[in-house]
Amino acid sequence: MKQADGAPRRTAALQVLEQLEAGAPDKVAQNLDEVAPELVEIVLGFAFADVLLRPDLDLASREMCTVAALTAMGTASGQLEFHIRAAINVGVTKEQIIEIILQMAVYAGVPACMNGIAAAKRAFAVVDKKTLA
Amino acid sequence: MKQADGAPRRTAALQVLEQLEAGAPDKVAQNLDEVAPELVEIVLGFAFADVLLRPDLDLASREMCTVAALTAMGTASGQLEFHIRAAINVGVTKEQIIEIILQMAVYAGVPACMNGIAAAKRAFAVVDKKTLA
Amino acid sequence: MKQADGAPRRTAALQVLEQLEAGAPDKVAQNLDEVAPELVEIVLGFAFADVLLRPDLDLASREMCTVAALTAMGTASGQLEFHIRAAINVGVTKEQIIEIILQMAVYAGVPACMNGIAAAKRAFAVVDKKTLA
Amino acid sequence: MKQADGAPRRTAALQVLEQLEAGAPDKVAQNLDEVAPELVEIVLGFAFADVLLRPDLDLASREMCTVAALTAMGTASGQLEFHIRAAINVGVTKEQIIEIILQMAVYAGVPACMNGIAAAKRAFAVVDKKTLA
Amino acid sequence: MKQADGAPRRTAALQVLEQLEAGAPDKVAQNLDEVAPELVEIVLGFAFADVLLRPDLDLASREMCTVAALTAMGTASGQLEFHIRAAINVGVTKEQIIEIILQMAVYAGVPACMNGIAAAKRAFAVVDKKTLA
Amino acid sequence: MKQADGAPRRTAALQVLEQLEAGAPDKVAQNLDEVAPELVEIVLGFAFADVLLRPDLDLASREMCTVAALTAMGTASGQLEFHIRAAINVGVTKEQIIEIILQMAVYAGVPACMNGIAAAKRAFAVVDKKTLA
Repeated sequence: MKQADGAPRRTAALQVLEQLEAGAPDKVAQNLDEVAPELVEIVLGFAFADVLLRPDLDLASREMCTVAALTAMGTASGQLEFHIRAAINVGVTKEQIIEIILQMAVYAGVPACMNGIAAAKRAFAVVDKKTLA
Repeated sequence: MKQADGAPRRTAALQVLEQLEAGAPDKVAQNLDEVAPELVEIVLGFAFADVLLRPDLDLASREMCTVAALTAMGTASGQLEFHIRAAINVGVTKEQIIEIILQMAVYAGVPACMNGIAAAKRAFAVVDKKTLA
Repeated sequence: MKQADGAPRRTAALQVLEQLEAGAPDKVAQNLDEVAPELVEIVLGFAFADVLLRPDLDLASREMCTVAALTAMGTASGQLEFHIRAAINVGVTKEQIIEIILQMAVYAGVPACMNGIAAAKRAFAVVDKKTLA
Repeated sequence: MKQADGAPRRTAALQVLEQLEAGAPDKVAQNLDEVAPELVEIVLGFAFADVLLRPDLDLASREMCTVAALTAMGTASGQLEFHIRAAINVGVTKEQIIEIILQMAVYAGVPACMNGIAAAKRAFAVVDKKTLA
Repeated sequence: MKQADGAPRRTAALQVLEQLEAGAPDKVAQNLDEVAPELVEIVLGFAFADVLLRPDLDLASREMCTVAALTAMGTASGQLEFHIRAAINVGVTKEQIIEIILQMAVYAGVPACMNGIAAAKRAFAVVDKKTLA
Repeated sequence: MKQADGAPRRTAALQVLEQLEAGAPDKVAQNLDEVAPELVEIVLGFAFADVLLRPDLDLASREMCTVAALTAMGTASGQLEFHIRAAINVGVTKEQIIEIILQMAVYAGVPACMNGIAAAKRAFAVVDKKTLA
């Protein structure tokens, strides 16, 4: 079963990832393929093909929720930076991102908020650089 | 300073809370006033007057982000239930709430998602009961 | 794509779940179908069909790892109880479970360990009752 | 080795526990002895004999720190209640406990603080009842 | 309302911050002003003016509690280092700080404690260098 | 009491540590002795002499559980890397380690899994280098 539907699911997942940030699929696939090639299908297939592609919530709202959750959890700064850039790429404004991160001070504390602000500054710098280029 | 602006800040905070769920301010204020009356102003003033009232993000998006974060954190089931009800009260649909909670399976794991689903079922039951009454 | 492979994936997931605890699929499916029937396939398909069925690690070792992780996280006592029962059902001994939970005092602190011990006592009581019946 | 120093270490641990709350050693020992009698020595010996008895920090400051940490972590409400009562028993005032819990709103968020306030109300009620009796 | 009381609240917050570490207000304000200038007032006003300045708990006890909580949470190593330095600046001894961090091995596990020890070594080095200069 | 049994307990702890990774005791002891020499006995004595040496669970299973828990917690990447190397040193295969980390995507979310994969790649590189040398 997995062999049969693996290819289209992998393709669907990497297409969403490309939509979130141009060039991301190559980096992630390269990273995972080295360790275990089927992880791309299982993990990213679940995250992007099965969940993020579902119709009842638009991609911008989904990315806002992910930025909120990763800021609150505080254990995945690399992924938080990626999703801040992805949020901008699907239409969330920088002002909205700052508001979401500020709001996490209420629900997860000031250090989580301050680390989120630092991640946002790094993510904004990458996005600004690409826009200028 | 605190005495001077305390009353309007407390009022502003409780107004937002009333908008999130009718009757909530009385319950919360009663709960906190018993222990330390100024907590309503400090804690709720921060959460509701200082943060949630800011203009750059609409209340529905804010509640979606809070549902996402509290589902992911998994340490505040009572508050999660409240914010699921609040999200519905400010216009988020049940389908969107289920999508947000499902998405948290990706970012915080399946148990966090399943506990979120259980909280949503309890919150939906309360909202449905009020709607019928 | 999802429609095509949904049924076998759902079936595979529920078979693993039945192996972990007889009767569990009915309870879980009932719980989720009420809210959103496709969650069984997406969430349980990921957890049980995609991950737990993979050949490189036996089910007993997998359940030991899950008991360790849920004890350490401390945010999912219901699932911890289920996986302690499941661990026993796939051949882990009670003594081994207690050792794993004790070891979590080292990695996640004494309260996480004590809450794990309490979950083990509840899980052992259910298992003992079934064995007697 | 363990057999040789087990008894005095167990005794030392249970003496600290008795100092934190009269009657606590019996409850804890009973709870753990049922599952694995040596856990009392290992876990409580570490917590109470090895760490809490060290001279460079007084017991009241230690209990304040534990109340802070357990409020912030949000995964051990039973233990938080116990340590709020213990803090009072070793001389921390109710006002100080409320201040510590309020301060955790800054570092771990408002829900952690609100759950801490609820735990404090339950702990205060137990302490007040004992004082009246 | 916010405009009216913003200036004194910002001033009060930055005064507490200066007391915790000379020069800190400039760094923090610069960092936040770049993204959103009102965050200094909202976030730091809450943390420092509203909470830390309250009279029922002395600043040394507050910093001890913050060191405990941040060590236990394990998600904010930068802030933990800052508060270890701040604790020393308001009169907590290095021995007391080590005791608090060691105690967190009991409540949050050995890795949290070891990471706390590493943060303490970095913080002590900064403090020692300033004292020598 | 502590003086009397300190030496053998310290020795036992460091022997387990040496078994987990040749050379580790020197590094850890050096690190801790600088701050407080008795921490080696208290913390490592608890972790390694009191818990990991207990007979009811083999060292390979213990290390698998620790890799699972640290991946799920996401707050101790240095320790996770160490325990991945230690797991290999006591007989766990790289394939099993990848399976455990993948499984944590189910229980703690995809970012925890991806950070675990990154730690595994770093740990595998160290182990491979030693094997070649």
